[in-house]
Amino acid sequence: MANRLLKTALIGQGFMGRAHSNAYRQVRHFFEVPFDIETTVLCGRNQAALDAMAATWGWHETSTEWRAIVERPDIDIVDIATPNALHAEIAIAAAEAGKIVFCEKPMAMSAGEAARMAAAAKHVPNMVWHNYRRVPAIAYTRRLIDEDRIGRVFHYRATYLQESGTDPTRRPSWKTQKASAGSGAMGDLMSHVVDTALYLNGPIAAVAAMQHTFAEGRDVDDAALVLVRFVNGSLGSFEATRYATGCRNANRFEIHGSKGMAAFNLENLNHLQFLDATEPRNLQGPRNILVTGPDHPFSSNFWKPGHVIGYEHTFIAALGEFLRALAEGQPFHPNFEDGLRVHTVLAAIEQAAESKQWIELL
Amino acid sequence: MANRLLKTALIGQGFMGRAHSNAYRQVRHFFEVPFDIETTVLCGRNQAALDAMAATWGWHETSTEWRAIVERPDIDIVDIATPNALHAEIAIAAAEAGKIVFCEKPMAMSAGEAARMAAAAKHVPNMVWHNYRRVPAIAYTRRLIDEDRIGRVFHYRATYLQESGTDPTRRPSWKTQKASAGSGAMGDLMSHVVDTALYLNGPIAAVAAMQHTFAEGRDVDDAALVLVRFVNGSLGSFEATRYATGCRNANRFEIHGSKGMAAFNLENLNHLQFLDATEPRNLQGPRNILVTGPDHPFSSNFWKPGHVIGYEHTFIAALGEFLRALAEGQPFHPNFEDGLRVHTVLAAIEQAAESKQWIELL
Amino acid sequence: MANRLLKTALIGQGFMGRAHSNAYRQVRHFFEVPFDIETTVLCGRNQAALDAMAATWGWHETSTEWRAIVERPDIDIVDIATPNALHAEIAIAAAEAGKIVFCEKPMAMSAGEAARMAAAAKHVPNMVWHNYRRVPAIAYTRRLIDEDRIGRVFHYRATYLQESGTDPTRRPSWKTQKASAGSGAMGDLMSHVVDTALYLNGPIAAVAAMQHTFAEGRDVDDAALVLVRFVNGSLGSFEATRYATGCRNANRFEIHGSKGMAAFNLENLNHLQFLDATEPRNLQGPRNILVTGPDHPFSSNFWKPGHVIGYEHTFIAALGEFLRALAEGQPFHPNFEDGLRVHTVLAAIEQAAESKQWIELL
Amino acid sequence: MANRLLKTALIGQGFMGRAHSNAYRQVRHFFEVPFDIETTVLCGRNQAALDAMAATWGWHETSTEWRAIVERPDIDIVDIATPNALHAEIAIAAAEAGKIVFCEKPMAMSAGEAARMAAAAKHVPNMVWHNYRRVPAIAYTRRLIDEDRIGRVFHYRATYLQESGTDPTRRPSWKTQKASAGSGAMGDLMSHVVDTALYLNGPIAAVAAMQHTFAEGRDVDDAALVLVRFVNGSLGSFEATRYATGCRNANRFEIHGSKGMAAFNLENLNHLQFLDATEPRNLQGPRNILVTGPDHPFSSNFWKPGHVIGYEHTFIAALGEFLRALAEGQPFHPNFEDGLRVHTVLAAIEQAAESKQWIELL
Repeated sequence: MANRLLKTALIGQGFMGRAHSNAYRQVRHFFEVPFDIETTVLCGRNQAALDAMAATWGWHETSTEWRAIVERPDIDIVDIATPNALHAEIAIAAAEAGKIVFCEKPMAMSAGEAARMAAAAKHVPNMVWHNYRRVPAIAYTRRLIDEDRIGRVFHYRATYLQESGTDPTRRPSWKTQKASAGSGAMGDLMSHVVDTALYLNGPIAAVAAMQHTFAEGRDVDDAALVLVRFVNGSLGSFEATRYATGCRNANRFEIHGSKGMAAFNLENLNHLQFLDATEPRNLQGPRNILVTGPDHPFSSNFWKPGHVIGYEHTFIAALGEFLRALAEGQPFHPNFEDGLRVHTVLAAIEQAAESKQWIELL
Repeated sequence: MANRLLKTALIGQGFMGRAHSNAYRQVRHFFEVPFDIETTVLCGRNQAALDAMAATWGWHETSTEWRAIVERPDIDIVDIATPNALHAEIAIAAAEAGKIVFCEKPMAMSAGEAARMAAAAKHVPNMVWHNYRRVPAIAYTRRLIDEDRIGRVFHYRATYLQESGTDPTRRPSWKTQKASAGSGAMGDLMSHVVDTALYLNGPIAAVAAMQHTFAEGRDVDDAALVLVRFVNGSLGSFEATRYATGCRNANRFEIHGSKGMAAFNLENLNHLQFLDATEPRNLQGPRNILVTGPDHPFSSNFWKPGHVIGYEHTFIAALGEFLRALAEGQPFHPNFEDGLRVHTVLAAIEQAAESKQWIELL
Repeated sequence: MANRLLKTALIGQGFMGRAHSNAYRQVRHFFEVPFDIETTVLCGRNQAALDAMAATWGWHETSTEWRAIVERPDIDIVDIATPNALHAEIAIAAAEAGKIVFCEKPMAMSAGEAARMAAAAKHVPNMVWHNYRRVPAIAYTRRLIDEDRIGRVFHYRATYLQESGTDPTRRPSWKTQKASAGSGAMGDLMSHVVDTALYLNGPIAAVAAMQHTFAEGRDVDDAALVLVRFVNGSLGSFEATRYATGCRNANRFEIHGSKGMAAFNLENLNHLQFLDATEPRNLQGPRNILVTGPDHPFSSNFWKPGHVIGYEHTFIAALGEFLRALAEGQPFHPNFEDGLRVHTVLAAIEQAAESKQWIELL
Repeated sequence: MANRLLKTALIGQGFMGRAHSNAYRQVRHFFEVPFDIETTVLCGRNQAALDAMAATWGWHETSTEWRAIVERPDIDIVDIATPNALHAEIAIAAAEAGKIVFCEKPMAMSAGEAARMAAAAKHVPNMVWHNYRRVPAIAYTRRLIDEDRIGRVFHYRATYLQESGTDPTRRPSWKTQKASAGSGAMGDLMSHVVDTALYLNGPIAAVAAMQHTFAEGRDVDDAALVLVRFVNGSLGSFEATRYATGCRNANRFEIHGSKGMAAFNLENLNHLQFLDATEPRNLQGPRNILVTGPDHPFSSNFWKPGHVIGYEHTFIAALGEFLRALAEGQPFHPNFEDGLRVHTVLAAIEQAAESKQWIELL
């Protein structure tokens, strides 16, 4: 039986556009799905760059008019990788046009926008590119939790540490301006922290927070720190910052439960630390598990055990699982509802920081 | 010239009493000081245990009456290693009797007690056993900061993670009861976190916090988490918990500054992570420095470079430096004033947790 | 100007065939080269598997007759990923037909075969897939050596540790039989060790060795250990084994020189340990460098700094650099001459193990 | 019942003399033994230094005549911490005088000397200070082996890496001259490697080796590398060097067996890596065990779990266990027979290096 053809439009020509393009090119190499993906049209503002990127990544057409694309009846998927300020308008238009909609994170400029997007996308298949849920080590942590190997959770501690802010030679970009990005470290980094926390440790009951901008004259946050009470009774802390000198991409978490401990750092994407607290005490120690199989998430999709994967594979795996869910008529996560949940927490953090009060989420 | 003899009374016969006893036996082996230490009298409540401990550690006499000891004119040093509830009364009496006073941490049951102790001890040499200031890696971090190798500090992140709370076979002790300990993780662990933070990163401007007791029926905190604004403009977070499964004694900090990064974990007492951000980016990475010399703090006191030291050496070094300061008529830190500073922060944390408000310290 | 089209035939349908297929699909996405790669024909023995693999990876045709393919005038590249026993015959035929020839490692069944292959390929562009030269951390080590940051080398220590042999459920494969593989750990793992050593530390003067087969009835080596004298005066040791319980893919080296130290483990593909011994001693420690840029090998080709790559990227980078060299008329390494150098060392190791003598290579 | 008093004479006033002195002062603090140790007389050549050291460490008398001391009837223990060249003569004299004899490693200048020493000491209690057998992590490895948690051993890999040789400012000492030391890295470092290997993995069947002197004009080895066949069928390699830039004191081993893996590095004295290969594969990873209790070797002697110990504790524990064995009339290891076993292997290594042949030991 022939595969169904999915004609795809990608709106966005930056770094994330490359990562998504790669996922479209690679997904069929690693995931068996009953779809063919056509990289139909690449949309952006800079025609010369569009031409080059289309040539490199095999996009059939280019366009500088996203509205025209969204209206094209032949397009099946609209994938949004623009600056954040455009997410909502495009996503809502695409959803209303009945497209499958993918959206980069942070999904929106605000929780209000996210709510409108989620409402609009209710009747179309959709995905937010919180790609880190498909890091094998993170998916494996989820499995360890499901298998009750962590037990009752006491503590969940997460930090996303980068150092872009400390580099004086770095030029301002859309990511450091409120008009285009909506926020700074909050949308860029904290949204990942929150999505992973919700995925692994469930809903949040209350937060206290502080935000700070180190760079003079910048109108977005450079760093945010949060105290968290989870609904499951565990205590948490989140931190996201662009001023963590020495950290290239340290998206980390540590979970302590009654039966075990797990710890992760994205700079060591292929490893997970796990401690089994049910063993004799003298044999306990954090195990450095190389999460490349056998019997690890996605290990049968990619290479042989012991052969590590990289950043890009998290996009491939997200897309692969989305397509499998689509084929099977199953729900997929993270979708726009999940993105809205993230934004609801982000909004509470901002409110807590501004009001200097604890904010209850439930 | 003969050394001055210092007759020492140790009040306390538990784990800390052993650590102090060891320091008295060892200090002259590693530090040149113009004093002889006589381990004159060991004081506690359990006579059988006192006898055994005195025999093991060479205490000349034993006593079950601390008041009598404090009044003895021949005693030079009164060292307090009792449950916290007794610290203030003994310390004030000893100070009023003109003794040199040493006190285990947490110094007091409350900031009020700490203030009275500091006032009473104003005119006698005194020390709080915040021994971790003498971990070579921590003292070396202080030196790196002094040499401006960290630069302007952006972030200071500290956790003291233990797992005693998760062990159902563990019996309650004086450390888990409010009447004897005053607090739980706060006095036991957070006091170390705060002292080290004040030592390395200076005074604190404001805190927000939460505290929690996981164990049913316990009247002290099992865990506390804090957001911190330091006076130097950096953002901080503190966490102290007895429910961090998998962590035996993870007293950790991470500092990110404009010029470098430093990170430490007491479970790796002899190592410091340091990153020099002034180097070419492609050569940067956290260096795992084995802080055993040459030219590291205390490295000339103990063994040869590459030969690691342990927990007990931090007490020996604290005592050694106290005695050197005493001989030279120089101030010593941490003293009761420093202990009071710690308790002022602890009190603000408790108040912040209780009131769910930010508490300003200045 | 239009790119030159290179029609490619891949002979081999196993794990390495997948890795090569991926390189063909991906190279143009990350490397600017004036060639288009057509994945023209996939050749193997199992038609059903060929069909599936061709469908997945976009091979236009399939074939079960490698001879016919080698004779096809339209084919530009013949890429050999078969069991080792077929390498020489195919490679020589392809070279004699004037093809560009790529060959998986180990290049040959013996040094004699390797010599005939190298002779045959003298007049055609060629490559051996010693892909690990393109691990960024390994290429960066080469750069550190070139910049004299290691200095005069004293020691070079390398191990390639896997555990496949210890798994009783693992079925024998062509890799564990002399007729198809020529050797065991020697060709499979030691060939990588030797190629990397020659790349980083130069030619070898003499070896002593032992080999061992743990598995009963197996006619190839499971493990080999070697003492090495390098021409540059440094002392080395090599080990390759399939019985290193606990090691998934631990291809490691450590280099100690008069100015610095470097250490690597393929299980942490994105990291390099580097110590600068010219700094003040108290600041020295092995730095854990995340070799993902900026200014690291291939960092501008793949993702942003801090975003890790995986196993497959080493093939993409090897192919990318081969094509760039081809375009510029420059020599490329590792080529068949380099492969012959590896086999000359492997033969000396085998001879040393068998004779229980040191074997001089020069 | 009163303890028996053991009057001790220490011959040697260098670094090891300090380490032994410390053990005498500390052993009763941590080990319950029915002996009192009197630090009776300290013997050396430099009277001024002797006086200072005696004052620091509490030696009652000093002497520059070891012969007179050995003949003193009141002395119970003669402890030899001199340059190696004096070990045999003193040890034999002391043994013949009926003393308990302790000897620093390397025990002798040659296997012949070691044999004469072992013969002479046959009828007196004796010990060689191969202190690393009392590193808790090493003793725990021995226990894991005894509990069959490693299984049949396939590989044993050990290196002792120091960098003293690379320091041009370092003055020659008795340790770098054949007349006083007998050898270089061989006696200093390799003797530890061999003793630990014999302790953990049993007797050695055959060796091949190379030795090298990097420093011009030096008459002892700077480095030695060895291939090893153990009697238990496992393959081994040993390396000892003073030219391992970047390594302060990296005494390391890795053991791979059918059931597990263990790995150690003295620079992380308190940790052991252990992998349990009998678990499900996806849960396997090297565990970083903090070997400080509960239920670890010596953990009940020293501090609480999680409170690390240092280099000196290995001497205290060796002495403590020697005294316990003495009290119970049990054999103690490592004794002079064990020291002879080490020297037999060292001699075989030297012979193998010189002859460029494999040397059989059995």
